[in-house]
Amino acid sequence: MKRFLEYLEEYDGALITPGSNLYYLTGMAPQATEERLFLLVVNRDGESVLIAPKLYENEVEWKNVVFWRDEENPYGVLERVLSSLNLKSGKILVEDTMRASFLIHIERFLENYTFYPLSVVTKEMRMRKGEKEIRLMKKAAEIVDKVFYEIASRDLMGKSEKQVALEIEFLIRELADDVAFPPIVASGKNAANPHHSPGERKIRHGDFVILDFGARYKGYCSDITRTVAIGHANEKLKEIYEIVKEAQERAFQSVREGIKAGDVDIAAREHIARKGYGEYFIHRTGHGLGLEVHEEPYISQASERILENSMTFTIEPGIYIPNLGGVRIEDDVVVEKKGKRLTKAERELMVL
Amino acid sequence: MKRFLEYLEEYDGALITPGSNLYYLTGMAPQATEERLFLLVVNRDGESVLIAPKLYENEVEWKNVVFWRDEENPYGVLERVLSSLNLKSGKILVEDTMRASFLIHIERFLENYTFYPLSVVTKEMRMRKGEKEIRLMKKAAEIVDKVFYEIASRDLMGKSEKQVALEIEFLIRELADDVAFPPIVASGKNAANPHHSPGERKIRHGDFVILDFGARYKGYCSDITRTVAIGHANEKLKEIYEIVKEAQERAFQSVREGIKAGDVDIAAREHIARKGYGEYFIHRTGHGLGLEVHEEPYISQASERILENSMTFTIEPGIYIPNLGGVRIEDDVVVEKKGKRLTKAERELMVL
Repeated sequence: MKRFLEYLEEYDGALITPGSNLYYLTGMAPQATEERLFLLVVNRDGESVLIAPKLYENEVEWKNVVFWRDEENPYGVLERVLSSLNLKSGKILVEDTMRASFLIHIERFLENYTFYPLSVVTKEMRMRKGEKEIRLMKKAAEIVDKVFYEIASRDLMGKSEKQVALEIEFLIRELADDVAFPPIVASGKNAANPHHSPGERKIRHGDFVILDFGARYKGYCSDITRTVAIGHANEKLKEIYEIVKEAQERAFQSVREGIKAGDVDIAAREHIARKGYGEYFIHRTGHGLGLEVHEEPYISQASERILENSMTFTIEPGIYIPNLGGVRIEDDVVVEKKGKRLTKAERELMVL
Repeated sequence: MKRFLEYLEEYDGALITPGSNLYYLTGMAPQATEERLFLLVVNRDGESVLIAPKLYENEVEWKNVVFWRDEENPYGVLERVLSSLNLKSGKILVEDTMRASFLIHIERFLENYTFYPLSVVTKEMRMRKGEKEIRLMKKAAEIVDKVFYEIASRDLMGKSEKQVALEIEFLIRELADDVAFPPIVASGKNAANPHHSPGERKIRHGDFVILDFGARYKGYCSDITRTVAIGHANEKLKEIYEIVKEAQERAFQSVREGIKAGDVDIAAREHIARKGYGEYFIHRTGHGLGLEVHEEPYISQASERILENSMTFTIEPGIYIPNLGGVRIEDDVVVEKKGKRLTKAERELMVL
């Protein structure tokens, strides 16, 4: 919060609804507040008031809180709070994921204001992780390693993608707070679509299956992908697997404090292109990871972002051949002078 | 969509991002669009343009679509679309759940406009269900009936609330698209909190356990609550159970086309108050149900809303005694002259 106030100097205040930024700045993560106004108002002097539904009375600790009851109009409360914090005009940061309907109401109390997305400030802050954050991310990564080995020990043949995705989700939720995102299970030809939603297709002998999943542990995410062969590994896909594995390793080896994020993408991309599959690597090499599954720094070709110690991101090249299938291998990495893998599950091709 | 245009006459246009309203009006339910602008722009003449990420090219069918690529600025596209639809000022409806960060960008292209939440219009439309909608809601209700019987046939003693909630979720997701909301499992004293989140507490002999869960089937929700006793039913809680059951039945019997929603609440509330537990019934009797778990008509004491045929809502009175426990019984109901239950699982106390 102190660091946030330094950043806030360029702005007159901030309006923060629940989400990863509120959690990052205050530790508060109230559940199911979508329909009721729950809002932290901060001005540039660092004065703040929390407006919260009465229902949350027992969950919330904040120096200045105003609770509102279901019979009350929360926007009347808000108007008074904005006045008391002298925050009815100026440059105001607004939580990106706030509901538009809240913002529409809030605008009615303001004059001569300009809104800016809160992420403009928080993405810079959140990109560099603290020791405690990295500890939680390691734990989230250990959980997905465990889940991968457990799933790989089961007989997947004959199960639908949807069934396997449910099993993965079930395993994650026994060990973590929640999944970080709905697991992807893409089998056979479906694996040629990097964003495939698990469906009714049953896993068959000879399939390559992409398993992409993540855990959320005390707010922090992991994100892993492994591709396994079922019963037998087709020669062509085996060749592709080795190319992706080598591309992932080269990208990982390239990670160093002070280089551009784009250079990590290029390390993977050049290897795949050299082997003749450039046109089949159709997404960026990775994305930042933390309280959200997708955040800064993005590992894309054009990124000029300089990597710094304690940044965390994924490295996940893939090759996708229409009507044949696909391979993706993904690890989570932290910059500590060089790169260090957080996910450590087997990267050699496993034939189950 | 035709009916929507009639409602739209009072406004100059609408900006609709994915969610239950977009699904209701167009049948489109694109997944994972939170981070990328996916927006249907409609003007009062009924002209519309869909702006969608290129990634969704294969999923989307609309007469006029503009796709944008990751390298492009989607707001440049939007500015052109707003011009072409002559929609740069006036009274504009905005999807309630749109991200504030989108709205902040959109505002920069507009002049002399006033925003209104889209729900002002859609809540009126969506409250009265069509035949097909009611058919899907029946199916969603049948699924939770089945899941209740399956869970009641299992040995719950010694399992944690969290474990039972996961089992319920797993069962629902095998039969439906998804859960309608995270299941509530509240055991023993925890059942005194109507919004309890399932935790590590293990279910014990003598507990009353509140099970509250819902399924989403082709977009439509069900929502059921049953309270079961484990091994043995405490006399006091048994007495409370009978009071809640009778209150729920009286509220149900009161449902008739043409009465106020508030009268249904009062039918339950008066019975509970007469039995001396008025102060322990601490929430409204129910809420509308459809594409969302909470929508109009709300069944609360002060509601003047007149019930009409084809409206659907829950009836769910409860009694919550701090340091003892609680009981809630909930069914989904449709108005067809009188009320008709969609959920039909056993309402007599089950001692498992």
